[in-house]
Amino acid sequence: MGASLGELATRFGCELHGEPDARVERVATLGNAVRGCLSFFANPAYRELLRHTQASVVVLQAADVADCPVAALVCGDPYLTYARIAGLLHPRAALVAGVHASAVVAASATLGRGAQIDAQAVIGKDSMVGEDCYIGPGSFVGDGARIGDGTRLEARVTVMHGVVIGRRCILHPGCVVGADGFGNARDADGWVKVPQLGGVSIGDDVEIGANTTIDRGAIDDTVIENGVRLDNLIQIAHNVRIGEHTAIASMSGISGSTTIGKRCMLAGQTGIVGHITICDDVVIGGATMVTKDISAPGFYTASFPAENNRDWKRRVARFRRLDELAKRVTRLEKMKGKHD
Amino acid sequence: MGASLGELATRFGCELHGEPDARVERVATLGNAVRGCLSFFANPAYRELLRHTQASVVVLQAADVADCPVAALVCGDPYLTYARIAGLLHPRAALVAGVHASAVVAASATLGRGAQIDAQAVIGKDSMVGEDCYIGPGSFVGDGARIGDGTRLEARVTVMHGVVIGRRCILHPGCVVGADGFGNARDADGWVKVPQLGGVSIGDDVEIGANTTIDRGAIDDTVIENGVRLDNLIQIAHNVRIGEHTAIASMSGISGSTTIGKRCMLAGQTGIVGHITICDDVVIGGATMVTKDISAPGFYTASFPAENNRDWKRRVARFRRLDELAKRVTRLEKMKGKHD
Amino acid sequence: MGASLGELATRFGCELHGEPDARVERVATLGNAVRGCLSFFANPAYRELLRHTQASVVVLQAADVADCPVAALVCGDPYLTYARIAGLLHPRAALVAGVHASAVVAASATLGRGAQIDAQAVIGKDSMVGEDCYIGPGSFVGDGARIGDGTRLEARVTVMHGVVIGRRCILHPGCVVGADGFGNARDADGWVKVPQLGGVSIGDDVEIGANTTIDRGAIDDTVIENGVRLDNLIQIAHNVRIGEHTAIASMSGISGSTTIGKRCMLAGQTGIVGHITICDDVVIGGATMVTKDISAPGFYTASFPAENNRDWKRRVARFRRLDELAKRVTRLEKMKGKHD
Repeated sequence: MGASLGELATRFGCELHGEPDARVERVATLGNAVRGCLSFFANPAYRELLRHTQASVVVLQAADVADCPVAALVCGDPYLTYARIAGLLHPRAALVAGVHASAVVAASATLGRGAQIDAQAVIGKDSMVGEDCYIGPGSFVGDGARIGDGTRLEARVTVMHGVVIGRRCILHPGCVVGADGFGNARDADGWVKVPQLGGVSIGDDVEIGANTTIDRGAIDDTVIENGVRLDNLIQIAHNVRIGEHTAIASMSGISGSTTIGKRCMLAGQTGIVGHITICDDVVIGGATMVTKDISAPGFYTASFPAENNRDWKRRVARFRRLDELAKRVTRLEKMKGKHD
Repeated sequence: MGASLGELATRFGCELHGEPDARVERVATLGNAVRGCLSFFANPAYRELLRHTQASVVVLQAADVADCPVAALVCGDPYLTYARIAGLLHPRAALVAGVHASAVVAASATLGRGAQIDAQAVIGKDSMVGEDCYIGPGSFVGDGARIGDGTRLEARVTVMHGVVIGRRCILHPGCVVGADGFGNARDADGWVKVPQLGGVSIGDDVEIGANTTIDRGAIDDTVIENGVRLDNLIQIAHNVRIGEHTAIASMSGISGSTTIGKRCMLAGQTGIVGHITICDDVVIGGATMVTKDISAPGFYTASFPAENNRDWKRRVARFRRLDELAKRVTRLEKMKGKHD
Repeated sequence: MGASLGELATRFGCELHGEPDARVERVATLGNAVRGCLSFFANPAYRELLRHTQASVVVLQAADVADCPVAALVCGDPYLTYARIAGLLHPRAALVAGVHASAVVAASATLGRGAQIDAQAVIGKDSMVGEDCYIGPGSFVGDGARIGDGTRLEARVTVMHGVVIGRRCILHPGCVVGADGFGNARDADGWVKVPQLGGVSIGDDVEIGANTTIDRGAIDDTVIENGVRLDNLIQIAHNVRIGEHTAIASMSGISGSTTIGKRCMLAGQTGIVGHITICDDVVIGGATMVTKDISAPGFYTASFPAENNRDWKRRVARFRRLDELAKRVTRLEKMKGKHD
């Protein structure tokens, strides 16, 4: 593969400082790059690495050209441009269309042109797998499920019956889409299961991380809109709706029937209670629990950073005596009043 | 399928307001219901939807009949009654008894009458699968494991060797029962693995969520009693015991050798440390860590709700100066003393 | 199997109080042991059980011999010695070398002598599986991956393409090694996927818990050093490095490009932000979030223990009025100043 710097500059709208005919074959980090590698500079913490890089070319902003000892591709957003160039230099292996001998495909399933069904995969009755899909080893597509064109189930993915997934999605290993939501009604003797009869509807260009779980709706569907990015080990409960282009980091949990707006960003280990609405363009800090509607865009948080355990324990003890402290202040105020 | 309103009223002990011969075919939400649908009203927030519903009948309490423009099935607990009616109107597809050609069943395994072993499942030596069990695609039942009558392993479930599971349980995709507990003894050079020699014993009518993990005991068994409900992505460590009808929401973790009582409810992302005992009828709030025994029923919590990040940071700064604030109050008190 | 007490004393360096020819067949807890069982005493909370144990022998420290009614194997660290004896009395079943008829092994894969590839496993092209490896049911080894001698993939494990795993590791069911890291660059219309081109390098004697996920690096590798122990449902993001013999409990998450030192211990549900460094010999308390570098060994924490909900809510209300309280104290100080 590989590309010339001139080609890259033209294709990705960069200003080239250097020889247009020089070529790069692959990407590398600033510190590990050698001749033939393209690197990028986006984090000022790595300026020393930039100054000594052996890369053939670095993608960076105009302000940083002076620190670059090699050729440069200058652009407004080096990380974004890097992402696109990396996709060009390192394309995915082409699919091998067809069904592996060990896979099990129901007679009533429809497979699109160019789709690859890999070893040990199972495709259920009346399901549809789109064109150029990849259904990886050990993955399961349930009865009546529909997988849009160009979507990939990487390995050991579970898509339960009736789930609808859009185009160009990537489902990473071990994720489960369409398991029953957690619906239980109390009776005198314990719990009665509430049948989970809804589905899951996932838009186009969605990415779902390894071992993440997205439950089917109780009656209506759980909905993930276009362009949503979900990291690993996330829980999306029944009847949640997640708006376009929202990104959620690992280990976050969204409880049932909650709606999250568009372009939100949730850091890791956030928890959102059920039946609330978070508006568009909200950012939630790490390990923060959201208990009420959020109706204004902005940055919300509620977690304490780690401290030396001795200091922390003293603070917690103080916190537990806040009532007493407040009462002491009130008493002082009253005495003050008497004196004045 | 379908049922007449008169039939439903009789069977589920409701008072019918409406035509006994009218029929419903399926359930729907108040807002999306059309003719032929049954809906329910249990959350006052949806009263406007009730007033405009197109459902054929709504399950509700007597106090809400006046707001219902259509037929009503009146009962004490609409959600519970709805759950039962939904189970009747939407029964599970019947099992197809037998072993799929792609499944692998050890010669020494015992399969009960009516059991279905689906595609790519693996059933180990000397294991027992009960009557009318469903072992879903890609699921694994280890050597010597026992699965009670009517239990379902939905898809890609792992049940390790020797695990015992009761009757009518549902194990959702990706859950793992009986992996080794986290047992490590320190030696001069690092860690020595402590063999995990116990099993897991799961009662009847237990539900285990997608990608939840329940470890085998170190020596004795890990025990999940009858009727327990576990949501997705939960961790149950070795030698934990969970009492009957306790329900635990997603992403909660119970550390080793802890005992949780009966009828407890743990919200999402709770963490319970090891070697403690929580009594019956305890409710734990979301994202709360429990570090000590709880010996009185009640509601326990310890998490802060999200706030605007600027406000939150100011509060954290104040929290960090609590020591100083307390000292200032003490100084004021002393000066006061001098003056008095 | 079984062993005589004399044999055990010699082999594990214990002082024997009792008959050297007496034999034990298996391990048991102090409370459940019967004749023929070996038990251990390491937690003072169980002293009463020690006093009444029916075990044939107990592994314990010299100080506890007086409370032991049966034979004793005296040593400095009973838990460690127990771990080793348990490994001797309860060895793993021997492997059955060879490839199960239902497994799929690429022609270009290399299988070491004595390796067992169990039912429904899939071994990719150009991969290497070492000697005496066990690749459990439904596990997947991607193209070009390398699994070191004596390593076990218990069941339904996913090892993606190019991942390198050392010797004598144990990967528990459902874990995923080498899925794409969470790399997204923003553009005007949403997110552009940043290709995840690095690998994962795992040392020797590493244990990875059930449903834990370890992402491949973005450009360079994610690295887990020798002897690391990871519990269930842990997230290790791209380009994390975890130092030798560090142990991490369940549900912890390590964000991208963070380095954790050697011999650290992280309790359950900890969260470590990205791009920071934690030095050797650090202990992090449960449910604690670490937001900055830690450069001194020690114990760090930041979580509140559960309380009665009414008390907790009152404290949170006080916390929210800390600003006001501080202002009241300042006002008192000023008035004081006026008076003095």
